[in-house]
Amino acid sequence: MLTLQELGELALVERITQWLPGDSRVITGPGDDCAVVRGHTDAQLDWVLTSDPLVQGIHFADDATARAIGHKAVGRVLSDLAAMGAKPAWGLVNLVAPGSTNAEVVDDIYNGMTSLASKHGFLIVGGDVAQGSVVELHAFGIGELPRGSAVLRSGATIGDVLFVTGALGGSQAENHLCFDPRVQQGQWLRNWATAMIDVSDGLAGDLRHLCDMSKTGCDLNASAIPVSLAAKKLDDGTPPLDHALHDGEDFELLFTIPEDNLNLFTEAWAKAFPNLTCSMIGIMTEQTGLIRCIFPDGESVALEHGGYQHFNTH
Amino acid sequence: MLTLQELGELALVERITQWLPGDSRVITGPGDDCAVVRGHTDAQLDWVLTSDPLVQGIHFADDATARAIGHKAVGRVLSDLAAMGAKPAWGLVNLVAPGSTNAEVVDDIYNGMTSLASKHGFLIVGGDVAQGSVVELHAFGIGELPRGSAVLRSGATIGDVLFVTGALGGSQAENHLCFDPRVQQGQWLRNWATAMIDVSDGLAGDLRHLCDMSKTGCDLNASAIPVSLAAKKLDDGTPPLDHALHDGEDFELLFTIPEDNLNLFTEAWAKAFPNLTCSMIGIMTEQTGLIRCIFPDGESVALEHGGYQHFNTH
Repeated sequence: MLTLQELGELALVERITQWLPGDSRVITGPGDDCAVVRGHTDAQLDWVLTSDPLVQGIHFADDATARAIGHKAVGRVLSDLAAMGAKPAWGLVNLVAPGSTNAEVVDDIYNGMTSLASKHGFLIVGGDVAQGSVVELHAFGIGELPRGSAVLRSGATIGDVLFVTGALGGSQAENHLCFDPRVQQGQWLRNWATAMIDVSDGLAGDLRHLCDMSKTGCDLNASAIPVSLAAKKLDDGTPPLDHALHDGEDFELLFTIPEDNLNLFTEAWAKAFPNLTCSMIGIMTEQTGLIRCIFPDGESVALEHGGYQHFNTH
Repeated sequence: MLTLQELGELALVERITQWLPGDSRVITGPGDDCAVVRGHTDAQLDWVLTSDPLVQGIHFADDATARAIGHKAVGRVLSDLAAMGAKPAWGLVNLVAPGSTNAEVVDDIYNGMTSLASKHGFLIVGGDVAQGSVVELHAFGIGELPRGSAVLRSGATIGDVLFVTGALGGSQAENHLCFDPRVQQGQWLRNWATAMIDVSDGLAGDLRHLCDMSKTGCDLNASAIPVSLAAKKLDDGTPPLDHALHDGEDFELLFTIPEDNLNLFTEAWAKAFPNLTCSMIGIMTEQTGLIRCIFPDGESVALEHGGYQHFNTH
């Protein structure tokens, strides 16, 4: 097996390049100073841009498989694009790795990245490599959508109904590495949602972002929050609902729907995505930033600030 | 002074966001899942995409100033965009740093980045942060140019004349941190150059990339190669010309001009950029990949493969 040190930069870049597919929209792929891409001209589009770091020891443990690392790096970007309602278009990836890394590990990482990318029409057209003490991927993504149609975090109004896809909590057991970014759902929701965010910091933390940006509060219906099987299985003394509220990296979509469209929406969702649940979990309220969890017995608990924060140890 | 650990991720992101300017083309800046940007609709454009890592201990030493680190991160991206002939448009930056980093260091980094960016109309519209063992910046850039007009590395033909801007060698003394990316020159050269690359791996290494992609060789005129004052001053036993040939990170533009346009080009350059020298240093030849350095006494030396390669220790 070859290490990156033995391989050298140019051979590494060549090896990586073989993972990147061609496409008629890619005028010049890897190999020049920049990639050259051509947008559509038959529509007036906006572009959405995002970048996500993936750092060994922070975003994945040392025992994560290389393929899963690649999957997660691209999945995080696709989840961000989905949360805007955008169609994935182009990506670039910077790889940082120690010189002692086996070249086959790089193959597996890029295999994981491009498998997920190609499934969603996301073209990785370039990037760069550098030496470092741990493995890192920095994935950059560009998505497109009709002009003015991006679904922002700031669009919710009082009375809008809050929904979340899938189930929440316990993702650290497995799901944070192999999740399925909600790319199709995000684009479909562009025609329905007033505000949207992907659940990466945990339901409570991301709902707070959405409330802060929309200048609303939210009453959550505790019994309606979809708790994942993984969270229920954890048996670590923390109630499963707390895992669903506070665990990070579910990568589900959290969004609001105007109350008037409620019935139309739930019917349309069931028809469009029969295999993915979508739970009505709350309603947007007047007092900015006040997020309350309402229990079946009528008890109401205001949620403190939460969610994962990098750099914080307190 | 606050450390990043004390500040926490959200306050850090807020602090960084203050460095990022608004613009009418930025529909939604930092704060959502993605930035939303709007391209021009009055022209048919291609987009060029590039990303560059900047890693402490690899791309800058521990004693580099924070402002210089920021300058270099954006400068590298702008230099890549220039090498395609593109106009800088949008950027994203991922910051990796230890929790013990002072928040003021981050301010200085972003000050260095945005000072250079704003000078060239490059808008940094977002990015992300993560914890890591050393400081890293991963800058991602999008540039625009008229459809089909990107200047590639592959466009040189036999007989084309090779030029380079500025002076080469010895950049490690200072210039690699405070260089001026050739943004205006790159765009201007779009109407003249048949092939172009920025000198980041060293003249010999980057000329090899250009020759390989263009399927040509090159005869360099040794006495015409512009050796920088820094290279002449080094006095380290290596001839200054060798520094000019092999040192990396000059970030000058290396490009080819058809022989028929030679006089027109040199006159036009002198008029357009009276304060930046542009040296005619060689001619593209038939034998693919054969790069020779021709000395005034007629001696000819074939250049071996060279230039900085990450991961290589041999």
